[in-house]
Amino acid sequence: MTVLACDFGGRRIKLGVVRAGHVVAHAVIPAQSHESLASRLPVVANSLLELCDDAGIQLRECRGVGVSYPSIIDPADERILDQFGKFADGARVDLHAWAQQEFGLRLALENDARMALIGEWRYGAGRGCDNVVIVTLGTGLGAAAVIEGRLLRGRHGQAGILGGHLTVRYNGWPCVCGNIGCAETEASTSVLVERATQLSCFKQSCLAAENDLTYETVFRCAGQGDECAQELAQQTLAVWGSMTVNLIHAYDPELVILAGGVMGSQDRILPAIQQWVAKHAHTPWGQVQIVASQLGDHAALLAAEWLVQERLVNEESTRE
Amino acid sequence: MTVLACDFGGRRIKLGVVRAGHVVAHAVIPAQSHESLASRLPVVANSLLELCDDAGIQLRECRGVGVSYPSIIDPADERILDQFGKFADGARVDLHAWAQQEFGLRLALENDARMALIGEWRYGAGRGCDNVVIVTLGTGLGAAAVIEGRLLRGRHGQAGILGGHLTVRYNGWPCVCGNIGCAETEASTSVLVERATQLSCFKQSCLAAENDLTYETVFRCAGQGDECAQELAQQTLAVWGSMTVNLIHAYDPELVILAGGVMGSQDRILPAIQQWVAKHAHTPWGQVQIVASQLGDHAALLAAEWLVQERLVNEESTRE
Repeated sequence: MTVLACDFGGRRIKLGVVRAGHVVAHAVIPAQSHESLASRLPVVANSLLELCDDAGIQLRECRGVGVSYPSIIDPADERILDQFGKFADGARVDLHAWAQQEFGLRLALENDARMALIGEWRYGAGRGCDNVVIVTLGTGLGAAAVIEGRLLRGRHGQAGILGGHLTVRYNGWPCVCGNIGCAETEASTSVLVERATQLSCFKQSCLAAENDLTYETVFRCAGQGDECAQELAQQTLAVWGSMTVNLIHAYDPELVILAGGVMGSQDRILPAIQQWVAKHAHTPWGQVQIVASQLGDHAALLAAEWLVQERLVNEESTRE
Repeated sequence: MTVLACDFGGRRIKLGVVRAGHVVAHAVIPAQSHESLASRLPVVANSLLELCDDAGIQLRECRGVGVSYPSIIDPADERILDQFGKFADGARVDLHAWAQQEFGLRLALENDARMALIGEWRYGAGRGCDNVVIVTLGTGLGAAAVIEGRLLRGRHGQAGILGGHLTVRYNGWPCVCGNIGCAETEASTSVLVERATQLSCFKQSCLAAENDLTYETVFRCAGQGDECAQELAQQTLAVWGSMTVNLIHAYDPELVILAGGVMGSQDRILPAIQQWVAKHAHTPWGQVQIVASQLGDHAALLAAEWLVQERLVNEESTRE
């Protein structure tokens, strides 16, 4: 099957043409999410049509458009449900109408972490495994779960994907989601500057010299012996470790895949989470494997084919 | 269908004969869990046979024995998996052989919180709802989930039931399960005395006068204006509130049922958890309902019939 694929991120929109488990053409455009989703859609459409041209693929060969979007997606009507997504107008944009109008194609929409998991599960680090959790470490913290071979969605589409919004410190920081002490508000790129500058050691630290503080810098400075960076790194890894254990306790996976932009520092992160889980997860049946993602940006693009296929099968079975 | 039912608790073993959704006879015997499970089984068998006699039911009318047990149960062979359950010898006892020998009946075994949920879901507070979570507040903290009409078990039987072992304070107390800051080790009857005596205000509190401190006393003293009891009650409700939000974020239910011995103080607990969830749960689709269990001790007994039925259907479909 051939499909068009869009993966809307906070900073970048990744686009692709996918056929039979392969990304046959792809491109990246800036998200400019401070503008609006509506204003980016013409650019997205043009880029997808160009990719088809480049790959020598006709639109009539495509069966649908698979879209990955950073929000809760209503499973009943496949609409963007969250009011505080990356694009302020996301919940008001009718992506289905857009896909029909631009390409004459059916659109299938799913949450971004769930799409990353579908990709890794069918084509990447989770291939052959029926019980998998993904943790995406980045601006926010995402998650998704496959349990006994079924993608977990839940009645309102939010099962599995709120893993970054499980409380890991009940008397902790308030989170944008309304909860307290979520992993995401304790340690993620979105709160990194705030958490770093709150440390009393910050001003004496090499972290203070950075204009654009990232976890890459935190882990690098920690490796160079900066005590403040070490404190911040330790605290961060405890939060991410606890989040991972919570997801293991909640969903009973054999495999956890760590993904997301912050995994650029995977040499520091992967062993720390592996050790945390080995020490703290309660799994009398054996040991959960913790691995890095294999597909990176291509995971969600590849997932587009699976998603369009799933929705077509659902529609056929509904018609029968 | 008629079945025998046993619900093994830490303090009491509840026994019943169940027919067509009704407990037609029931009894309670002390667990004496400091002795051994093996030594209690003859007493359990005699009591069940007596119940049948009392109810005028012949053993040959019964289709199986449904057993609720406080442990992770291996879903592959229905054995007790945990090494640190309520009875020290639990994992070494072959309950299936026992049921065959004593009654000539098939035994079906399931985790206790999951059994309480099955009971409430099919016959009690969760009737008609396809997306339900139970939270059991007692010596330990238990949980279980039904998602989109399916009981959540997971590959190794631990999905849903480790809700009391989700970390709610990543830098908190160590837990018997090996994890840190689990809800159960922050606030449950098993740690109540320890948590109370750690408060600097404890010695001046009316809590210090109690020989056998319970949450009933804590909530009563808090209601009478004891500041130390108020501090402990507030901390406890924050832990249980956070645990409930974590389960809502993990499993996407419409309904949460609160159960367990501590719910004797439900006038204090239910409104507090309802308020915590209304304030902190992220559910853009609407509001999760929080209710008290309806069936109490009978939930797990009634669940025995559902469980035996499920296993018989599974066996038939395997044979076909």
